[in-house]
Amino acid sequence: MSSSCRPVPDVPDQPAFASAYEARQAIRRGEWVRHTSGLAPRNAQGNLVILPEKLATDFLRFCQRNPKPCPLLAVSEPGDPFLPTLGRDVNIRHDVPLYRVWRDGRMVEEVTDIASLWRPDLVSFLLGCSFSFEHALIDAGIELRHVTQGRNVAMYRTSIQTVPAGPFHGPMVVSMRPMTAANAIRAVQITARVPAVHGAPVHLGDPALIGIADIGKPDFGDPVDILPGELPVFWACGVTPQAVVMAAAPEFCITHAPGYMLITDLLNSDLALA
Amino acid sequence: MSSSCRPVPDVPDQPAFASAYEARQAIRRGEWVRHTSGLAPRNAQGNLVILPEKLATDFLRFCQRNPKPCPLLAVSEPGDPFLPTLGRDVNIRHDVPLYRVWRDGRMVEEVTDIASLWRPDLVSFLLGCSFSFEHALIDAGIELRHVTQGRNVAMYRTSIQTVPAGPFHGPMVVSMRPMTAANAIRAVQITARVPAVHGAPVHLGDPALIGIADIGKPDFGDPVDILPGELPVFWACGVTPQAVVMAAAPEFCITHAPGYMLITDLLNSDLALA
Repeated sequence: MSSSCRPVPDVPDQPAFASAYEARQAIRRGEWVRHTSGLAPRNAQGNLVILPEKLATDFLRFCQRNPKPCPLLAVSEPGDPFLPTLGRDVNIRHDVPLYRVWRDGRMVEEVTDIASLWRPDLVSFLLGCSFSFEHALIDAGIELRHVTQGRNVAMYRTSIQTVPAGPFHGPMVVSMRPMTAANAIRAVQITARVPAVHGAPVHLGDPALIGIADIGKPDFGDPVDILPGELPVFWACGVTPQAVVMAAAPEFCITHAPGYMLITDLLNSDLALA
Repeated sequence: MSSSCRPVPDVPDQPAFASAYEARQAIRRGEWVRHTSGLAPRNAQGNLVILPEKLATDFLRFCQRNPKPCPLLAVSEPGDPFLPTLGRDVNIRHDVPLYRVWRDGRMVEEVTDIASLWRPDLVSFLLGCSFSFEHALIDAGIELRHVTQGRNVAMYRTSIQTVPAGPFHGPMVVSMRPMTAANAIRAVQITARVPAVHGAPVHLGDPALIGIADIGKPDFGDPVDILPGELPVFWACGVTPQAVVMAAAPEFCITHAPGYMLITDLLNSDLALA
């Protein structure tokens, strides 16, 4: 499994579309089957999990109990493909560039549209993505090493257990960004203001204290350099709910393909506390 | 030199006075010549520096340039002993339990009233004190080791230089509180909201990175235990301006005696950002 929302850091100088709506329309027409990093950079992007209604209540409780790894931006009505709180005419059957279809916990295909797979019992969950807080960190002048090095962020399974709900349980997955102590302190302040996109870090300093045996060998993504005088800083990661759902092996499930996110009309700045 | 504002942690279950005003009145009458820790615990206490007007502008600029170690709560008019923004009938000539008088950078006496020493060119500076944020940390359930161990907080000279102004310059002094990474992250969030009392930490983790050679040997205060899995977390300390002023050796200066603070009518909660 790779990152839920950052395949290759790639923020173009000019957004490819005039608005999030325009981007979604192009995606719907099949004109953009690429990852969404850097598209409509002021807008929040979301991780998608679609489950049958009979599992939806358990998953909703799981998200409520684990808000740092599972920050819920929206939950649909059963069978309703529209997510009006996320933006103009958002139709989850068409508006993600690439979907993954899972049966009994195994990925069976990748598709660019799920209208033909739609069922009246499907419930869509949109979860906040760390793209949003990474923009805030970069805007604050904090170097993100994986961006500088052109790599995927480093992610690790931890000994921190999520709070279970129904069939959903498992370890928290975290992403790691190395930085100086001064920047770590600023990053805590900046990301604490965006609980809808993972919020403040869950750990910093000694990786062994959260069950990470070798910081040089991430479980997902790429290793990044930690320079002398830097601390590793760990945030709850959107890979957590994906891993938890797959481990529960639902008979049917649809997610976005890693990096191919739903672009919402919500501004990253709207997600920040006052 | 000892701590500017914490001689012996000692928070009684019941405040000794009904209000900060009552406490100041008792101090003015000479009925309370003891340290003020735990007196009117909901109220902010202040570090006092009184300087001749000819140095006051430089010191004001020094505080403006170094807000973390020198958070200014109030500055008086020259010769005016009243500080109306800090509380009802605050008269700086009487309302501190114990003062220190300095000439040419050397402490020459300790007195309980400075009316006889008053001059028309004296300017009073009141600086925020970490008592206020320590209450917020304790209220949040974060153990403060020096409180648990009944010690003074550990303080260290660092390699972090203050920004100079006129004759005022020198290294930042920091206080250190050990805690788990999870509590350190919460403590950053809590103390970032109180910039008037030192604000967010200036460092955490490796002490050597800020020039502290031996964490077991503080320059001021007492050493405290750092347990396995804990990080040292460092805040700018009110000892900094005291050390800077004494190093500048002004011909005349009055400060509070360490731990014998001005109790203001400001509530600690009033100092927090919304």
